[in-house]
Amino acid sequence: MVGGERAVARCDALGVPPFSGMAGGLYRGYLTPAHRAALDQVGRWMVEAGMEVRVDPAANLIGRYEGSIPDAPALLIGSHIDSVKDAGRYDGPLGIMLGMEAVAALHRAGRRLPFPIEIIAFGDEEGSRFPAAMLTSRAVAGTLAAEALDLRDGDGVALADAGVDVRAYLSAARSPSATLAYLEAHIEQGPVLEAKGLALGTVTGIAAQLRYQVTLRGIAGHAGTTSMPLRCDALAGAAEAMLAIERLARDAASDLVATVGRIEALPGAANVIPGEVRFTLDIRSGDATRRDRAAEAIIDAITVIADRRGLSLATTLIHDLPASPCDPHLMTLMDAAIMGTGQPAFRLVSGAGHDAMVMAALCPTAMLFMRCKDGISHNPAEHVDPADAQAALEAILGFIDRLGETFAAA
Amino acid sequence: MVGGERAVARCDALGVPPFSGMAGGLYRGYLTPAHRAALDQVGRWMVEAGMEVRVDPAANLIGRYEGSIPDAPALLIGSHIDSVKDAGRYDGPLGIMLGMEAVAALHRAGRRLPFPIEIIAFGDEEGSRFPAAMLTSRAVAGTLAAEALDLRDGDGVALADAGVDVRAYLSAARSPSATLAYLEAHIEQGPVLEAKGLALGTVTGIAAQLRYQVTLRGIAGHAGTTSMPLRCDALAGAAEAMLAIERLARDAASDLVATVGRIEALPGAANVIPGEVRFTLDIRSGDATRRDRAAEAIIDAITVIADRRGLSLATTLIHDLPASPCDPHLMTLMDAAIMGTGQPAFRLVSGAGHDAMVMAALCPTAMLFMRCKDGISHNPAEHVDPADAQAALEAILGFIDRLGETFAAA
Repeated sequence: MVGGERAVARCDALGVPPFSGMAGGLYRGYLTPAHRAALDQVGRWMVEAGMEVRVDPAANLIGRYEGSIPDAPALLIGSHIDSVKDAGRYDGPLGIMLGMEAVAALHRAGRRLPFPIEIIAFGDEEGSRFPAAMLTSRAVAGTLAAEALDLRDGDGVALADAGVDVRAYLSAARSPSATLAYLEAHIEQGPVLEAKGLALGTVTGIAAQLRYQVTLRGIAGHAGTTSMPLRCDALAGAAEAMLAIERLARDAASDLVATVGRIEALPGAANVIPGEVRFTLDIRSGDATRRDRAAEAIIDAITVIADRRGLSLATTLIHDLPASPCDPHLMTLMDAAIMGTGQPAFRLVSGAGHDAMVMAALCPTAMLFMRCKDGISHNPAEHVDPADAQAALEAILGFIDRLGETFAAA
Repeated sequence: MVGGERAVARCDALGVPPFSGMAGGLYRGYLTPAHRAALDQVGRWMVEAGMEVRVDPAANLIGRYEGSIPDAPALLIGSHIDSVKDAGRYDGPLGIMLGMEAVAALHRAGRRLPFPIEIIAFGDEEGSRFPAAMLTSRAVAGTLAAEALDLRDGDGVALADAGVDVRAYLSAARSPSATLAYLEAHIEQGPVLEAKGLALGTVTGIAAQLRYQVTLRGIAGHAGTTSMPLRCDALAGAAEAMLAIERLARDAASDLVATVGRIEALPGAANVIPGEVRFTLDIRSGDATRRDRAAEAIIDAITVIADRRGLSLATTLIHDLPASPCDPHLMTLMDAAIMGTGQPAFRLVSGAGHDAMVMAALCPTAMLFMRCKDGISHNPAEHVDPADAQAALEAILGFIDRLGETFAAA
């Protein structure tokens, strides 16, 4: 079995009890028995791969493979071991397994890089148990405040009683000077690579995101007695707005995406013309300027539509998340590593958040996306072709080699 | 006080306890104490207006004013005395009050028509207490089946225990040969007359209605990771469909109306592209052929949109209510009667249902619509200008006169 296949098979093995806390599906919440069992198993695999294993104060599992230069800053390779409820098996764990396979391959070949490599299995990325996402990478990146640890899960269990020492928690923070870079391999969780017929892509960064609540108000009226010219139909106005949103996002012909995911028409009866419609508007791009320009154009367009139709418009900004660009030099290395596997280089933005966006506060980051079937994720149907995982493993090894060369040259 | 003003004032008087069963608003449910109290009061007014009063087996209150020809078929003038919850005061009662005022005017003038006139206060039109609308006009029209009386209200009280003898109920049916015509004056419950600057309009009929449940299915996806060209967004498709519905109904430039009143996007999260959208489609016209042609054009348009977008489409017909046209001869008389009040004749379709649509099974029907403020109904803000009610009274008297002339000529 080649390493990529084994990485996939290990994710599959971790998809069932005792590594899942859910019968008939996968749920591995932070600090649950399933999480602990997974850390024990992954820790054994790390040892087999030639690593020294420790668990940090935030319950992140870390395997270390020493480099040839003493005290050189470490390359961290990782992803998250926790999952959402009824999860797929590869979202998170596959990045950890592939990092381990890379180290195992180096170990088998008796090779050391100038720098140490640490494989890290973050304990909480999804935020599926405690109401805080990316808790453990924030602890490592040193961006977590002590107050943020005052958390309780859905059963009322405090983080402090869940098996970690919250007084020591923040000491999981790493020193920037001791950290060379962070690399995360992850399934794309989207359909772009599949549509391009590519196994791998270099991630340019995590998209900047804006989210609005949009409300259009017209006049409710009887669907039978109000003639068409006399209507002030909030839903017809919303329909025109939604098409404008789609058109403007499409016309951008870039990584920009805009989505209306939730809509409510009031009063919501078949025989009443809607007097009010509320919908969400989510806009993302790897480039915050492009995102903001699109948001402005979209809101301008909706304003014109509302004015022309005699509707009142209210837009409320709910989220404004900055972009987290990956490091340009590391992207170039990753492009070359991907080409080294025989595939053309391809870059794409990540519309979803990852631990890498948090780690960017600590060190330069790189991300490698792997194709997943039909773009499906957060679902038991999540699927990765083992051959794609093997290509990813080769790209990771190529990336490590190239980073070693530039490190030696520096 | 002229008759129109008094009719409005009497509706106002009936808008409070004991004629309402709701504190701080109007609710007069069928066979409730408020209904009984209203029948007692309206019965006294009928006696004052020169009528003989009876209550039929369906608890309809009927006042009779004899004609000059013995056993001539009767002109029925009526509307409903029941109301929705938190109702306006004129939807229903105003038609009864105006009928009484017409008889009172004839009585004061010592005039008899060749035919008797009966003023009828239907007990149930709204269906706000028992789960069946227009129960009492259906009893009078003879279109009610005995099984339809097996009804319970929201508190579990059977119709049979609510104060009517259900064994005698169907004997409320009248003979077609003893019924000359049915006239109903009603507030428009829509904005058309107000927009035209007219107090009155001749109703051409109750609109034919189709109602569909429309479902569009695409592919749900992550709002951040699915690029615009790869989306199969059911809500964007629904938006295009809703605009097509609006455009086709507007372009008909007729009495045709089409409404999407309820919409649901699934899964309904701000960060998920909707994979499925369900919405209602309500299409009405006074002309069933026009309605059906519009429905066909709309469904064709949605089919094209769905095909182009790769969405699957399902449409389910929920209701198919036939049109109930008013009698052409009686419409001509009503046009003339309206012109007799100094206003131009104007015809419009009723998009809402009325007792007249049920009574059409028994006899020729006519309806007179009165302007109401902002088209608002089923709401305490419902308002009618007393001057408009006076104009309606004059039109009713003019209609009765003209009907008397044609009756004598026949």
